[in-house]
Formats: sequence, structure tokens, C-alpha cells
Amino acid sequence: MQFAFNLSADRKLSLQNEVFERIRTMILDGQLRPGDSLPATRIMSDQLQVSRNTISLAYERLRSEGYLETRRSVGTFVSSQLPEAGLNAKLGSASAAPERTQSSFAGAIRPVRAQSLMNPHHDRLMVDFWVGRPDPRSFPTKLWSHLIAKRLLYAGANLTDYRQPWGQLELRQEIAKHLRPARGIIADPDDIMIIGGCQDGLNLVGRLLLRPGTPAVVERPCYQGAAYLFESLHATLFPVPVDAWGLNTMQLPDVSNAVVYVTPSHHYPLGVTLSLERRLELLTWASRTQSYVVEDDYDSDFRFEGSPITALKGLDRFDRVIYLGTFSKCMGAGLRLGYAVVPTAMREAARNMKALMNNGQPWLEQAAMADFMKSGHYVSHLRRIRRSYMAKRECLLAALSEHFGSCTVLGDPAGMHLAWHLPESLPLASKIEAAALKEGVGVYTPTSGCSTYLGEEGDSDRVLVMGFSSLTEKEIKLGIGRLAASIHGLNS
Amino acid sequence: MQFAFNLSADRKLSLQNEVFERIRTMILDGQLRPGDSLPATRIMSDQLQVSRNTISLAYERLRSEGYLETRRSVGTFVSSQLPEAGLNAKLGSASAAPERTQSSFAGAIRPVRAQSLMNPHHDRLMVDFWVGRPDPRSFPTKLWSHLIAKRLLYAGANLTDYRQPWGQLELRQEIAKHLRPARGIIADPDDIMIIGGCQDGLNLVGRLLLRPGTPAVVERPCYQGAAYLFESLHATLFPVPVDAWGLNTMQLPDVSNAVVYVTPSHHYPLGVTLSLERRLELLTWASRTQSYVVEDDYDSDFRFEGSPITALKGLDRFDRVIYLGTFSKCMGAGLRLGYAVVPTAMREAARNMKALMNNGQPWLEQAAMADFMKSGHYVSHLRRIRRSYMAKRECLLAALSEHFGSCTVLGDPAGMHLAWHLPESLPLASKIEAAALKEGVGVYTPTSGCSTYLGEEGDSDRVLVMGFSSLTEKEIKLGIGRLAASIHGLNS
Repeated sequence: MQFAFNLSADRKLSLQNEVFERIRTMILDGQLRPGDSLPATRIMSDQLQVSRNTISLAYERLRSEGYLETRRSVGTFVSSQLPEAGLNAKLGSASAAPERTQSSFAGAIRPVRAQSLMNPHHDRLMVDFWVGRPDPRSFPTKLWSHLIAKRLLYAGANLTDYRQPWGQLELRQEIAKHLRPARGIIADPDDIMIIGGCQDGLNLVGRLLLRPGTPAVVERPCYQGAAYLFESLHATLFPVPVDAWGLNTMQLPDVSNAVVYVTPSHHYPLGVTLSLERRLELLTWASRTQSYVVEDDYDSDFRFEGSPITALKGLDRFDRVIYLGTFSKCMGAGLRLGYAVVPTAMREAARNMKALMNNGQPWLEQAAMADFMKSGHYVSHLRRIRRSYMAKRECLLAALSEHFGSCTVLGDPAGMHLAWHLPESLPLASKIEAAALKEGVGVYTPTSGCSTYLGEEGDSDRVLVMGFSSLTEKEIKLGIGRLAASIHGLNS
Repeated sequence: MQFAFNLSADRKLSLQNEVFERIRTMILDGQLRPGDSLPATRIMSDQLQVSRNTISLAYERLRSEGYLETRRSVGTFVSSQLPEAGLNAKLGSASAAPERTQSSFAGAIRPVRAQSLMNPHHDRLMVDFWVGRPDPRSFPTKLWSHLIAKRLLYAGANLTDYRQPWGQLELRQEIAKHLRPARGIIADPDDIMIIGGCQDGLNLVGRLLLRPGTPAVVERPCYQGAAYLFESLHATLFPVPVDAWGLNTMQLPDVSNAVVYVTPSHHYPLGVTLSLERRLELLTWASRTQSYVVEDDYDSDFRFEGSPITALKGLDRFDRVIYLGTFSKCMGAGLRLGYAVVPTAMREAARNMKALMNNGQPWLEQAAMADFMKSGHYVSHLRRIRRSYMAKRECLLAALSEHFGSCTVLGDPAGMHLAWHLPESLPLASKIEAAALKEGVGVYTPTSGCSTYLGEEGDSDRVLVMGFSSLTEKEIKLGIGRLAASIHGLNS
């Protein structure tokens, strides 16, 4: 039997580990078979020019992991228990890194598609009107650091123990207090669940209510994260068109036990508000068809005219609405923190599902957020960024008029982005997107900007989506100037 | 028409909001019908004794939300667009808090059961041998606070922007570096995903690979979080018994395209190690049947004799193992941080699924953990707590022998808990658990301690599970003393 091997000169592993790895690999590769004998430690030590103790320790570890067995006063052998079929797995090389056989594998993994909340082109852009990004300068870093530091001082077992998967009571209480005046929702803190942003909440609802074939009614266009999630759960999707009054409830499908996903306060991405008539119609329909409505209230904090409109959940007399709120837009997506208000009848199942899904959110972010809300800083933070985003929106509208004359903007003055309905005189949105990209400016068609028409695009190529919240007014002006130049280049 | 209402004396809402809420509720309750006229602001103001401006603002908001409409020089009316069917939803009361109709609802919400990682009896206990709890005193709070504070100083857009849902590259690189010597796993950082603990990883795997009816092979007994999760995904469960060498691979079912869940390093809760022969057999079986193996390596950092055994993933030449590691046991569950090593062929699908599930983990914990590992503190932290847990385990064994004579402990000297096989002379584990609870001591049968036999209990009532990691040696001694007293009370 050819046993010799040399130790490599530039080792990443300790001598003992290298000896261990080499012999182990020879066994797994079938170069050493069950029952083969190994040289005595003294001989190996001479051969490899390492101490006998190193060899002994490597043998000992191979023994303890079951590779070798020792027969007293006979010697050391490759364990005769090892299954021949498990060894020499058609691998010729004795390399420590096993080669992979992928062909038989890939077929069974079903591909899924997902929303892309990061802009893949971001690094190539000078001014990026990407969607859903809070202004990093708006984050109250100093205060947040202070709250975090204070909480860590008295962390105790909070960092080490498991906690209620549905979230900290004190944060749930603060959210309940906030929701009543801000969104017209009267919620029992026990019906509130802390989630890792709206997507975690959508997944929670999907896991509770969707099975293969369950009807899922979505807006057209629809936020990708909702449509693709429902698709991954093998629901049957029913896209319902959105017009100037939101989801067209006249076109709700003739199904029952469905889930309806809506963004009633500020449709994503078109920005329209679901009218009161349609809200009532939707709720009546849900009650009649034993369906549930998921209200994604992702950016309702930013309404620049009039009072914030009451949430759909605030109208929910049948307890058929699951309300999803997030701190991703008003604070930051890096916190991965949001909340759901679930129907009381769903509470128990939702708590169990949250435990099965991920056992809840980290303690520190929850604790700091509770303190931030309790201290009153949250409300003043909201007021501050609302003012700032309103100014940015005005600036964007002014820059657009300056370069393109009067502009038709869909929806209400609200949110972190706007949807510009392009005049006939301008090229298609996809053309503009490509031309602007070359000029270092990011503007987006609805489908590039995290939404989907689910194969029924219609006149979607007349709409350009522009996020303004993360940019300075200077950047906005610069960006629209370059956008105008790039469109001019297209037309000439 | 009787219109009058009085404003409540002890108001939680502003006057304007109260007027708004009252009228809104009257419309929704059907006391005011579409087309009904409202008193002029002057009359309302006189009647309620509040300023006319307050009434005007309330009317304006009701108008902007679609409840009212104004016909010029005629007056203000309840909007004629409102659907009659959506109003007066069988609710008699005009209370602001809507009543709930639950009966039609509850039937459609399928109950799910979940693991309980928090001990429901904790508050009643003086000494609690609950499982899976790190010692809160072991958490490096000071250093952690320092790392967190430093990261927050330079947080920039990290708190506000969305990031790669599969986790920060620098943390994935540190984990890759750690896994090679510690677990014998050679992993490309791009095949590593940051997850919110093992449960999030199990869910990821389940969502990728399980559909209703997919065979899911689990250990018997099995960690509840895995068995109940697979159940919630409607997989068909195949429990395979665990003996002194781990999962009995001779009893693997005759199925294909299955998912196998194992805890090979330290079975939960029995503590045995899956033997090398069976590891190889399991991998061969997985390859032959086109199945995948999920390796839950939850507490492999705590091995008190010999080297840490190479992970199953380190033997995985067919790329059929998904490895799950967690920082919940070695750091703390409050971080909600762990990692998965996925087969390269699964990378793309797993990243998309993680995005669909919850868009990833918070930035701060990931960044601090990367720094903690990079600085070398992680390795010394592991060494320190390993020593401490080993001493606690010795202390527990000594206390048990002192009171009960020689004890049979299942499995290997490892982990954060031990499984005591009760001698015939002692009562059943469930009896002991109940008696100890009365004495303020928490000890657990396997099924109370987060595992399940899936209806085939066998002789499970001869095993008592005791976690020791979170207790001081003094508490351990006290607890076993009281346990002995409570058992004595049962026998006498």
C-alpha cells in the first residue's frame, strides 16, 4: 500500500490538523479502505518529520470521530464499520476541498423570484431617484446611540434569553398609543405583533392563510414583494387594476376565502389613495366572501396635505383586516422593524406562526424603539422628516416643470416617491430610464422600481417613478437637469 | 332627524378629532345615511359650544376622507357615493371602538403549534434547569457596547438603506474563516447566509424544499421547532428513532426527494452524537434518494472532551447538506443571529427566498458580530464559556451522584443540558417534573423541554432533561438538593 504523503510547506492548518485532514480525506476518498492498517505513530513521525505527539493527537482525533479503530497490541486500522458505499464517492482527487456534483441537485430546487429593494445600478449613478430610501442624514443617530448605550447598560438576560416571538410588550403598547391618533386604529397591544418589516408580516399572513391555489387578489401594478411572495406560496393571483381612486373594487373576482393585498393610503407605485367608497366596498366584499385584507401602510407617515387619512383597519368592523406598518421608511430599513395588527381571532395562530418562522426580532432594536417612542422623540422626528420630504417633493416638481413644463403627477401629495405620467411628447419610460442611466441618473419604470404588472403591462411605459426622500435638493436639481439633457439627446 | 350629541367631559381626543370621530361613526353606523344633510358649522358650533373653526376643520377632514360632500350654496351632506351595504354593519352602538364579529372568521384560520423556547413556569421557580439558555453573566456586555457604539458612529446609510437580504459580506467572511478549523467546513462566503437563528434557517429550507406531502424525516425525539415547522408546511413526517449512535439510519424510510433534519453533533435533547458510519450512510442515502439533509449544529461549540467533531457538512461530497449554525447559544438568543451554509446550487434560490421571507437581519447586530469575530474576541469568548459550562456540568453530575448515587447520563459530555436516564428506583419523569415544580425547581421531560416524540412516546418518561448553562454552581447544588427532597416526598 502506498501510504506516504508530504505535508505542504505553506500551511494554513496546524501540523496536527493537517495530518488529521490528510488521513481523513484518504479514507473518505477510498485510498484507505475499512480494515486497512495504519503505520505506527513512530513510523509516521519519522516519515513526516514531525513529533510523535503530533501524530498521536491526530490519530486520537481520527479515532474519536470514528475513522480509526485500535486493536490492542495489534495496531491502528481504518474503522471496519465504515460503509463502503459512503466512501470513494466517485472523487478521484484527495484534495481537502470536496468537489461538488451538482447536476442531480439543481432540478429539484424550484427557482423563486424576489423583489429587489437595492438598486443594482446604484454604484454607477451620480444622482439616484431610487425608491423607498429614507434620508440617511435624517436618522437621529446621536439620540439612537444614546438610547442603545443606556439599554445595553441594563441588558441583563435580554441579550441571552429567548423572548416572546411576537415582540416586547412595551413597544407594542407604544405602537398602540401611536396608532389611534395617527391612523385611527384602536388596537389592543395583544393584537399587535412586532415583525421584521412589512415583508416579514406579509410572509406571516401568507403562511397563515395561503395554500396552493388560494386566491390572492393584488393590485395591478403591485409591489413585487407581495406578488412574488404569494407566487412562492403557490397562491392563484388575481391582479385587479388600480385607477385614480385606487383598486377598482368593481373588478374584484368572484372568489371566496381569498387574501387581498392593498396599499390604500398611498398606492405603490402610483401614489393614489383608495377612496372611501371603495374602502367600504372592499370591506363588505371581504366579509361577504370570507376573505382577509392585508393593508400595507408602508409610507403613510408622509402625507403633505390635510390630515393623515384613517387606515382601512380603522374602518374594519368585521375584523378582516391585517394591518402592516413599518419603521423601515420613517426610521430606516437597517433596523428591520415593523408591526402588524392582527384580528383577535388570529392572534394565537399568528403568534405561533411567528415563533415557527423566526422566533421574533432582536431585543436591542425593539427596546431602543420603545424608548424613542415613549420619550416623544418619534413624533417630533416624524414631523421633521415630513417637512423635509415635502420640501424635496416640491423641489422635484419645480425642477420637472422647469425642464418639461407642466407635469401630470399621479396620486396624492404624499410619500417618498412620485409617479410622473409622461406627456406624449416624451419617449417611453423604458427608453428614458436607459438614456438617463448612461448620464448617471437613476429614474425608473414601475417594473424596474419594485413593482410588477404581472404580465399585463398596459400603458405602464408612460409612467416614470422617482424617489426623492434620500436626495438633497441640490442633487434633485442636478439630477433633473441631467435627465432633461439625456431625454433631449434621445429626441434629437 | 335627531342629530345632537354631546362631547365627553374627559376627552382623550382633541375637540376637532372628537367631532370628526363622532360624525364618522354615525355615518358608518348608519345613523346618518348617504345624502343626509349636516347642520351648518355655525349651528353645530352653537350646539356643541366649541369654536366654529373646530367644526370647520372637522368637516374639512371628513370631506377629504370622503365622508361628506359639499354642494355649493346648498350645504354639507353625507357623501351620496357611499355604498349602503358597507354601512350600518349590524352594529347597534355608536361607540368609537368597533365591535367584532368573530364567528365566521375563526374557522378559516388553521391552528398551528409552535415550540416554546420560553419556560411558561419560569416565574414560579427558584432554580430553573430550563434548556438552551446561555449564562447572562457570560455575555461580553462591555465589549459589545463598545463595538456597537463605534459602529453607530459611522453608521451612515447602514441604518436607513436596504442591504443584501443574505447578510453582510464581512460577517460571512468571518464565519467562513471560523468554520474551517472549528467545524471542518470549507465554505465559500457566498454560500453563507446570515439568518435570524436556526429557526429562520429551518423556515428558509422548508420554504425552498417542502410542499404539501413532501417527506420530512425527523429524529424521534425531535426538536419541536423543526417538527412543528415541517408540520405547518404540510410535509409528511417520518420520525426515525435515535439510539446511542444517533439517528438510526437503518430505519430511514423508502422515500425520495425528502428533507432530513438532524442534530448530529449533539442530539436534541438526548445528547448523543451521530456516529461516523451513520453519517456516511445518511449522506449516501441522501444522494441516492435525491434528498437534502439539514444539519442543525445548535450547540456544537460546547464539547468538553476531545476536539470538536467535524460537522456533517464537512463530509458532504454531494452538496446535499444545509448547515445551520446559530449565535443564540454561544452569544445570546436576543441577537437573533445565525448562519446557514447552503449548497452552491441552492444559493440563488435561497437568497431570493430570504428576501421574500423578511429581507434579512438588522445591520447593527451583524456589524458588531463581524467586529467581535475579527478582533479574535469570539474565539476567546468561546473558550471561556466552554470552560464555565464544563464546570457547571461537572457540578450538576456531582450533585446528582451525591443525592442519587451513580447516574446514567445519555450522550456525550457536551452542550448546555444533559439527559438523565432515570433508574428504576425513581418515579416517572413527568411525576418528578410536577413534584419539583411545587418545590420551585424546574426539571423537564423531553416533551416539556422543547422536543416531541410525535405521538410515539415509548419510554420517554424515563428521561429527565436539565439545562445547566444559565445557573451558578450554587444554584445547581441548591436545585438538586430540593429536587431530591421533592422526589423523596413522592416516594414516602
